[in-house]
Amino acid sequence: MDLVTIRELFKNSAEYLDKKVTVGGWIRSIRDSKTFGFIVVNDGSYFEPLQIVYHDNMENFGEISKQNVGAAIIVTGTLVATPQAKQPFEIQADEVTVEGASAPDYPLQKKRHSFEYLRTISHLRPRTNTFQAVFRVRSLIAYAIHQFFQERGFVYVHTPLITGSDCEGAGEMFRVTTLDMDNVPKNPDGTVDYSQDFFGKETNLTVSGQLNGETFAQAFRSIYTFGPTFRAENSNTTRHAAEFWMIEPEIAFADLNDNMDLAEDMLKYVISYVLENAPEEMNFFNSFVDKGLLDRLQNVVNSDFARVTYTEAVELLEKNNDKFEYKVTWGTDLQTEHERYLTEEIYKRPVFVTDYPKEIKAFYMKMNEDGKTVAAVDCLVPGIGEIIGGSQREDDYDKLLERMKEMNLKEEDYKFYLDLRRYGSTRHAGFGLGFERCVMYLTGMSNIRDVVPFPRTVNNCDL
Amino acid sequence: MDLVTIRELFKNSAEYLDKKVTVGGWIRSIRDSKTFGFIVVNDGSYFEPLQIVYHDNMENFGEISKQNVGAAIIVTGTLVATPQAKQPFEIQADEVTVEGASAPDYPLQKKRHSFEYLRTISHLRPRTNTFQAVFRVRSLIAYAIHQFFQERGFVYVHTPLITGSDCEGAGEMFRVTTLDMDNVPKNPDGTVDYSQDFFGKETNLTVSGQLNGETFAQAFRSIYTFGPTFRAENSNTTRHAAEFWMIEPEIAFADLNDNMDLAEDMLKYVISYVLENAPEEMNFFNSFVDKGLLDRLQNVVNSDFARVTYTEAVELLEKNNDKFEYKVTWGTDLQTEHERYLTEEIYKRPVFVTDYPKEIKAFYMKMNEDGKTVAAVDCLVPGIGEIIGGSQREDDYDKLLERMKEMNLKEEDYKFYLDLRRYGSTRHAGFGLGFERCVMYLTGMSNIRDVVPFPRTVNNCDL
Repeated sequence: MDLVTIRELFKNSAEYLDKKVTVGGWIRSIRDSKTFGFIVVNDGSYFEPLQIVYHDNMENFGEISKQNVGAAIIVTGTLVATPQAKQPFEIQADEVTVEGASAPDYPLQKKRHSFEYLRTISHLRPRTNTFQAVFRVRSLIAYAIHQFFQERGFVYVHTPLITGSDCEGAGEMFRVTTLDMDNVPKNPDGTVDYSQDFFGKETNLTVSGQLNGETFAQAFRSIYTFGPTFRAENSNTTRHAAEFWMIEPEIAFADLNDNMDLAEDMLKYVISYVLENAPEEMNFFNSFVDKGLLDRLQNVVNSDFARVTYTEAVELLEKNNDKFEYKVTWGTDLQTEHERYLTEEIYKRPVFVTDYPKEIKAFYMKMNEDGKTVAAVDCLVPGIGEIIGGSQREDDYDKLLERMKEMNLKEEDYKFYLDLRRYGSTRHAGFGLGFERCVMYLTGMSNIRDVVPFPRTVNNCDL
Repeated sequence: MDLVTIRELFKNSAEYLDKKVTVGGWIRSIRDSKTFGFIVVNDGSYFEPLQIVYHDNMENFGEISKQNVGAAIIVTGTLVATPQAKQPFEIQADEVTVEGASAPDYPLQKKRHSFEYLRTISHLRPRTNTFQAVFRVRSLIAYAIHQFFQERGFVYVHTPLITGSDCEGAGEMFRVTTLDMDNVPKNPDGTVDYSQDFFGKETNLTVSGQLNGETFAQAFRSIYTFGPTFRAENSNTTRHAAEFWMIEPEIAFADLNDNMDLAEDMLKYVISYVLENAPEEMNFFNSFVDKGLLDRLQNVVNSDFARVTYTEAVELLEKNNDKFEYKVTWGTDLQTEHERYLTEEIYKRPVFVTDYPKEIKAFYMKMNEDGKTVAAVDCLVPGIGEIIGGSQREDDYDKLLERMKEMNLKEEDYKFYLDLRRYGSTRHAGFGLGFERCVMYLTGMSNIRDVVPFPRTVNNCDL
């Protein structure tokens, strides 16, 4: 169909003013007097809607006037400037045809609906202002991330979703199976006979693509993943979902400083991209969802991120222990209250905290020379706390094997990973960015359920 | 680390000639005489390797000379033009340091390895020429697809992976569960008690994001998905994987012609992007994997795709029934031999086949006025057959409900989908592109296992 988008009309209005145009969209509001009426229509291409004026010289004036909010219409008319009005122009319609009516019980009426209610109609909520803004910005953030890495020559790697390995503890993983649940096949000793399962062994949904990603970084030097990850955690919070997307870059011939440079550049790039490409949506969030959002994001783009070791950070925080519910001592993990105090009160800008005690970090992180800390890094940002976690990886075969033994990991499960340290090992590093947390950070939305199109949480798998 | 990539040296060599540079990479081959040696090194940033010349004036000349293929080194030296040689330049090294040695049993020696063997070392095969080319091109195709849709204002939607619905038959789906497989909880009547499962009900891995995608198209007008999909089909072929990625655009205010225009534009865009951005890799495929590949792809870019109805296509094919193993008759689905005959012999270019008998297509496809066919479309390309399948969707509530009843689908499972036809329904259409099939098509690789980083097939879930 030969329709012009409302985005195109707003972006290149000079080209269309006083000309005939045809648009299609959904009615946001409609009111009429006896001889004419106004329709506000949105076509999903642009945050701002378009006003249509129609008159009783149309044959179907009556039919139009009785349309409900949500109806789909196609309008042909002249785009006319409206210098006296709030909106810059409107369409004086010659013809309005009803593409699809909207039943009287349409749940989205002009009043404001609560986010809780809108979660119960996830198939319709993208038609509201807030979710138009959220999901367009989500899409733009995803694209900005791809663009950032591709411009720098990174190779996008699709690490697998179904995995036979069990890197961070099977308790938190979803089982994937084609076995008959009504009648699970058993071995003579009573255990489940996974040899009959689709892959001939136990399989789960991945919790991270990092280890697979490392194999590609040792071939392509700079790679990134961007795909779904899963956690079967029984935690019903505003920040956890069972299914979420993650970005995991991995860089060879690179150390922890290179890793921080990359993370800082990426965050600034993505924020700048969204501010430039979704100004209407970002203004909406700043006005109606999170006042102060734009200032905070601008501040991130314009500041050099601070860098501090965990040990130094603990010293700084200990002086303020009277302010915290959980007291800080060296050796314990930082809580969100500590992270936010560091970034919001002490540094007033994003801060990288590095070199954490080995006991609170993963086996693959590079041991520092002190023998007590590892080359880990968390990036903390005002308003949210930790947004990125990463590390330089242990590239020494013997040290890695020693750490694996300390943590009771089976050598045979990680043969491929150890191989990377036997054949042309390089210093290398990487980090993980939870995509939903990034979307929450850039939009100011406070519940992860409201930044995922169809959220999956405990006891919730609708649509 | 302050290293220059080999890509940068090749793309902007004038800037670096006769200057000091430092590169890091992995040894592809090494040979030495008593006083000097040659190393061919690749850093994963560029398909072509770089030659290093080193001399015995270096302290560690002996250590360097005994390095094995696969070792990681860092080289500082002068980039020097080599007008007499095959390669345009080389590095005259001042310093070569070994970043990580390569053990004597390194599996990738200079000889050619079979794809079958390389599948057994999926963590190392990206270091070979073929898989460097495959996985870089895979990354570029993915990016080209995002770029194509984003430039046109499409919203990227992450449809869910874990799903409670069962759109195309549970027999082909993977179950997702946190129930204890050793001791599956049962209801009093002996059935599985899914209320104790993570989501409180039966859940599976998705086979398509289309229905969810449609809900967003009715809000944003033009959307696309790009994510993993799963089939638990027990088919051990060169074209099927249990886990693969799919692109599913969906456009509102659009009919089957708009859908074909979009698919044709997308394929041409993606091919052009890859030819422009990976000429070295594409020449390699054309020389060593699939002679004729470049001609075939150029032909696709330059031709207008043909458009023919299923009924017309059957008439054309019936005249050639003596050439086919399976004879063509109206009402049966086209086999690959028929599809390839149409596109390779009859049209000699890509062809859209439209308006298939309703009996062989899905319930959501729009019924044509003849009452016998639906507004489906398959895109067939030379060398492969079907690469895209799509349709205009049934947008009429009553007709959709009737089709669902004919096919014994439960109305309550599709309430959200029917709602789209009650609240501002629009004519709309979409298609699915199997990403791996697209990568195979553009690279000439003939086994899906060789275009997926870590393939998942029956009895195969390594790493």
